[in-house]
Amino acid sequence: MINVTVWNENRHEQKNPVVRDIYPEGIHGAIANFLGEEDIVVKTATLDSPEHGLSDDVLNTTDVLVWWGHLAHDEVADEIVEKVKTRVLDGMGLIVLHSGHFSKIFKTLMGTTCDLKWREADEKERLWVIDPSHPIVEGIGEYIELEKEEMYGEHFDIPAPDQLIFMSWFEGGEVFRSGCTYQRGNGKIFYFRPGHETYPTYYNKEIQRVIKNAVKWTAPTKRNRPVYGNAKPLEEIKAKN
Amino acid sequence: MINVTVWNENRHEQKNPVVRDIYPEGIHGAIANFLGEEDIVVKTATLDSPEHGLSDDVLNTTDVLVWWGHLAHDEVADEIVEKVKTRVLDGMGLIVLHSGHFSKIFKTLMGTTCDLKWREADEKERLWVIDPSHPIVEGIGEYIELEKEEMYGEHFDIPAPDQLIFMSWFEGGEVFRSGCTYQRGNGKIFYFRPGHETYPTYYNKEIQRVIKNAVKWTAPTKRNRPVYGNAKPLEEIKAKN
Amino acid sequence: MINVTVWNENRHEQKNPVVRDIYPEGIHGAIANFLGEEDIVVKTATLDSPEHGLSDDVLNTTDVLVWWGHLAHDEVADEIVEKVKTRVLDGMGLIVLHSGHFSKIFKTLMGTTCDLKWREADEKERLWVIDPSHPIVEGIGEYIELEKEEMYGEHFDIPAPDQLIFMSWFEGGEVFRSGCTYQRGNGKIFYFRPGHETYPTYYNKEIQRVIKNAVKWTAPTKRNRPVYGNAKPLEEIKAKN
Amino acid sequence: MINVTVWNENRHEQKNPVVRDIYPEGIHGAIANFLGEEDIVVKTATLDSPEHGLSDDVLNTTDVLVWWGHLAHDEVADEIVEKVKTRVLDGMGLIVLHSGHFSKIFKTLMGTTCDLKWREADEKERLWVIDPSHPIVEGIGEYIELEKEEMYGEHFDIPAPDQLIFMSWFEGGEVFRSGCTYQRGNGKIFYFRPGHETYPTYYNKEIQRVIKNAVKWTAPTKRNRPVYGNAKPLEEIKAKN
Repeated sequence: MINVTVWNENRHEQKNPVVRDIYPEGIHGAIANFLGEEDIVVKTATLDSPEHGLSDDVLNTTDVLVWWGHLAHDEVADEIVEKVKTRVLDGMGLIVLHSGHFSKIFKTLMGTTCDLKWREADEKERLWVIDPSHPIVEGIGEYIELEKEEMYGEHFDIPAPDQLIFMSWFEGGEVFRSGCTYQRGNGKIFYFRPGHETYPTYYNKEIQRVIKNAVKWTAPTKRNRPVYGNAKPLEEIKAKN
Repeated sequence: MINVTVWNENRHEQKNPVVRDIYPEGIHGAIANFLGEEDIVVKTATLDSPEHGLSDDVLNTTDVLVWWGHLAHDEVADEIVEKVKTRVLDGMGLIVLHSGHFSKIFKTLMGTTCDLKWREADEKERLWVIDPSHPIVEGIGEYIELEKEEMYGEHFDIPAPDQLIFMSWFEGGEVFRSGCTYQRGNGKIFYFRPGHETYPTYYNKEIQRVIKNAVKWTAPTKRNRPVYGNAKPLEEIKAKN
Repeated sequence: MINVTVWNENRHEQKNPVVRDIYPEGIHGAIANFLGEEDIVVKTATLDSPEHGLSDDVLNTTDVLVWWGHLAHDEVADEIVEKVKTRVLDGMGLIVLHSGHFSKIFKTLMGTTCDLKWREADEKERLWVIDPSHPIVEGIGEYIELEKEEMYGEHFDIPAPDQLIFMSWFEGGEVFRSGCTYQRGNGKIFYFRPGHETYPTYYNKEIQRVIKNAVKWTAPTKRNRPVYGNAKPLEEIKAKN
Repeated sequence: MINVTVWNENRHEQKNPVVRDIYPEGIHGAIANFLGEEDIVVKTATLDSPEHGLSDDVLNTTDVLVWWGHLAHDEVADEIVEKVKTRVLDGMGLIVLHSGHFSKIFKTLMGTTCDLKWREADEKERLWVIDPSHPIVEGIGEYIELEKEEMYGEHFDIPAPDQLIFMSWFEGGEVFRSGCTYQRGNGKIFYFRPGHETYPTYYNKEIQRVIKNAVKWTAPTKRNRPVYGNAKPLEEIKAKN
């Protein structure tokens, strides 16, 4: 049983009727719904809640945090970002979706600008599976096709992923590393590109399957954390002078 | 439920009473015994059986193959090696133990000599966990200590592992990449260093735990294999000339 | 001063007037010509020469070997392949071009099938730079555009590259890992996708620049080779029992 | 001709006569001296200079920055750290030495805590070469032995290095990833472990050779930086609805 918290900025849904029509329960609601079909306990949290819905208690009982943000990255409080980062390095899984590439939490964990090319032009995206042995693509075909999506193009300013799972082809001529894993400290991170707010991407069954698989993959490994700092020798050190 | 076949050369056990005393059921028997404690169906196979115990039927129903060999790598028939390789690239997990670094199957999958330094001197080995987030080290402490083992030292002539899980310290002054993962085709491979035949290494509970974890990690990802060869275009190609 | 040998199967040039018209001196001749503009000593070698032009003397004085083959991979003698492999693991650089993905030397160094999707349809290829810090892309823009090329598509059955330098977009809807580095033993390998025989790809100045850069990057690192085998302890091992 | 700036905190040298005796010109002076033997233009900069000696002009004309710090990481101004980070992502090489693992610049580029085990016990360190093909080990033997050094032990909380070059063995029983490369944005980073202030490590000729090699390896790749942000399509996007 995995405890997942789906965090969403939840601002487009307030401002834009197109988005509200597609996601009447919010993007977080849509994601929570399909995750709930699995052996997963799902909570949601949004920016405008106290502590953005990410109190110590919530964070400490979350195995995997899913993150969607776009308009209001700067409104996420630095101390919450720091707490989330500590939890990831301590073992909590993190799934960063789409425009979350520019979130404070992703940028601070990556150490790079996480910048990219982008375009909103109702164009076709095809996500090709690059690593067929990876659990994140269980049940997925050779590619996932999305009729209309926002384009994200290279160069994507991230560290070379520990594992590259998907590469996207875009109708307008670009490519993109669309599914990337990172292991940081005791935690596992998955960045997954699709999910622009004006398209029904999170209702796509294959996209849902990838996120479900990613929850399992990013779930914490159970072991005691390493000990840091001053250490007594395990073997005798000979006197030398 | 994972189907595991434990393959062992089973020659030291015939020739050397020291080894037979430690492993009266063979190294394969000892490994099969502790794997059987998990939700795993275990078979064993040995060099001197017809087809080395690795008939098409056995291979096709094996999810994860565990490999221990040393004295008689050259006696393993090339066509069996080729079948095992095909199965790995098709998705079967492979766990290569200790002196299996010089097996035909490991060398052909790595593409390098897989050579190393070695010494039999009853010396201490300490395997440090390098990647604390990896499922293969679930339940494992900061290091595993083995009072007496054979030394394997760098340079180990392997491709840089996709993930480096353990690094060994040896009393005599060397280090070694002792736990290495590789993803090849649709299959996952784990190389794990310890297990010289004259020491009771495979009775060590932490070593057992690592191998149990590795069975889960290398188990196949369920999906259709990619299609190769000539491909029709998915998009219109404009006439140019 | 780097010593390069450009090896070419040189069969299309004999059979197909289209290819001969594009490459009157052979693909090897075209590549040798532009490499000769740099501080590089260039030789060529072809399949139909004795020992395929790859005598011990040639191999031992070659710093970087460039490989183009397609129709006749099977005609390359296994013992020559073995010698080339030994030289690469001993430090010689290797640049594998285009259909060389299916050469014996590339497959044996990779350990996988190296299979892929392909199509000849006069379609556009755009190679995007993924790793802007890499010396292989010095002087190269954001992408290289080739008006007409053969398509190679994922899944490309190779080990995850040590460094992924280029990703291709194809007009017909596919993507491909087009520039991949591998370090194997003491040697460095670069696979570079473009160069179908019926297009003038090797006259493209940016393609030439990439291959020139790759020669410098794959050139051997000067040091003594590691020592393998039985090793005396560097530190005292305490008697235990 | 490469322009290097050697940055040193330069505090131990003021407070501790042991350190001053070993490094009468400061650690920065010692490093600058041996780098000056190569085709390198060397400057030095220290914490107590205005802007820590890292004005825009200095940073903009620096190809590779070498960083040594320990006691006073917190006194390095955040805005200078931000400028250095920007320069690294823009292409400047960065070599982080020893206790620089805890510098603000290294931690922000890595995204992790960069914590480790440590011990000052006059013990032996042996740095084994793991990647014999890498230019950073040109001219280096199988290992570098340092009679007395501070111990740094795993787990070292860093991202898995893009390339692992050295692994250290310590007399007291630990191991450590001692030479690690990272490519971030347009820049290349090398972390190199040895160099505790109370030992004459930077006079060791092999240590010097590694740092000289690393300067060449981290030197910028000459090309225009990628363009980010909104991008016009390169191909026609069909109207759909």
